[in-house]
Amino acid sequence: MAGTRPVFYISDGTGITAETIGHSLLTQFTETRFVSERIPFVDTVERAREVIETIRAAGERHGTRAIVINSCVNAEVSAALGESGALMLDVFAPFIEPLERELGEARKRWIGRAHGMVDFETYHRRINAINFALSHDDGASTDYSEADLILVAVSRAGKTPTCLYLALHYGICAANYPLTAEDLEHDRLPPRLRPYRNKLFGLTIDPMRLQQIRQERRPNSRYAQLETCRREVAAAEKMFRAEGIPTLSTTHTSIEEIASKVLTTLGIHREMF
Amino acid sequence: MAGTRPVFYISDGTGITAETIGHSLLTQFTETRFVSERIPFVDTVERAREVIETIRAAGERHGTRAIVINSCVNAEVSAALGESGALMLDVFAPFIEPLERELGEARKRWIGRAHGMVDFETYHRRINAINFALSHDDGASTDYSEADLILVAVSRAGKTPTCLYLALHYGICAANYPLTAEDLEHDRLPPRLRPYRNKLFGLTIDPMRLQQIRQERRPNSRYAQLETCRREVAAAEKMFRAEGIPTLSTTHTSIEEIASKVLTTLGIHREMF
Repeated sequence: MAGTRPVFYISDGTGITAETIGHSLLTQFTETRFVSERIPFVDTVERAREVIETIRAAGERHGTRAIVINSCVNAEVSAALGESGALMLDVFAPFIEPLERELGEARKRWIGRAHGMVDFETYHRRINAINFALSHDDGASTDYSEADLILVAVSRAGKTPTCLYLALHYGICAANYPLTAEDLEHDRLPPRLRPYRNKLFGLTIDPMRLQQIRQERRPNSRYAQLETCRREVAAAEKMFRAEGIPTLSTTHTSIEEIASKVLTTLGIHREMF
Repeated sequence: MAGTRPVFYISDGTGITAETIGHSLLTQFTETRFVSERIPFVDTVERAREVIETIRAAGERHGTRAIVINSCVNAEVSAALGESGALMLDVFAPFIEPLERELGEARKRWIGRAHGMVDFETYHRRINAINFALSHDDGASTDYSEADLILVAVSRAGKTPTCLYLALHYGICAANYPLTAEDLEHDRLPPRLRPYRNKLFGLTIDPMRLQQIRQERRPNSRYAQLETCRREVAAAEKMFRAEGIPTLSTTHTSIEEIASKVLTTLGIHREMF
């Protein structure tokens, strides 16, 4: 069992790419404990020198060498960071040469292209999708003519976070429809959802887990009783089956996984922002 | 000028890591046009064989070799994909060996660790932060005792998307306070914000840009007039200066950049979900 390793995600942009790949890599090493810090906007050699001090100090504090996961596009900054004595992993370096050869063009070292402002039209699409998710959250508006998809589920099954994620990252107009007690008395789709059948995706959840979530939200309410959760989930699942609505259980599923499966199932392809 | 290149982000998990690094890499090549598709949950050799057909068909359609950016943890799946004839870029491969050597442990090939469900406590923190952002959006609740930070700005300057992003990705309880006409009559902070001075961050924006955004929202209203936008932005900036509130212009800034700068400025360190 090794000790605690300091990890730094360093970039001349936001550092989101470095942290995303770094986090994915480190989850594959389970015997080491990591403490990580993201240091964005390191865009001058002077700033890099300050950061080197931070890296060295962390190494000394933990009695070990730090790991730097670096997505700096600026070559001088990247070279300066190399003097820190840390294990340096440059997230772009291994892929640039094969891509340059394949594409027959040289990379451009522009900072902040991945998570920077692209153009107003793209930005608008993203903001509009967020506004759509907010105005169509929890059945607030049920005009779904502009919706790319509609998540259908009982209360607290994971609809809202998934809609917000889809809006923020893919500019998708995702509405969510909470199945009410009245809806659940019938095995058929609520009338207002029927015109949008091909946009529907049902979420389901283990009733024990639902009870736990609702209990946090409204302790000791009838809403949070296990019996209520069991009845609602069973009725919703029955409806989804009867109507042939695709479903997914959110019990052991992250927001990213739900979002990804919904898009794949409904055949919606959008590039990430 | 090269033609259009088909790009596939392929993973046995969500494919978010592959798409994030792939997107960052490709933005550095500006002379090629790319069409990309994410194919998640490719977790069997049989599924990989189906995907190979998709890759080959895309290559033939575009008269060129496809590029595969692959974050499969499963070695057999990864090997099977290699038969597609595409340029294969494995996002983990270059970093595993140096990390294994440095950490003295072998990687675990577990699928979906990075964007999978972690544990209920972590999940709760994330969901609570999203609920917090929603219930404290647009001044809805002004009880900020639990807030990690409060974004302050005139209407439509970028507060809501930033708060949602911070909640979703960092589990940060971010509130947002819209400066009202009454607030803007004074150069000092609105009284209800004063107890939380060290949590405040001001957003500002170019009045021309603000006018454009408001015009989309409420066409031809007084709210959307350039004169109104100019007056409100000037008053807000004056207040931020007088009170020493850190600020950032959102005019040419993406949601990711705003979020990253706010965290850095306020000295808030959180690991990404």
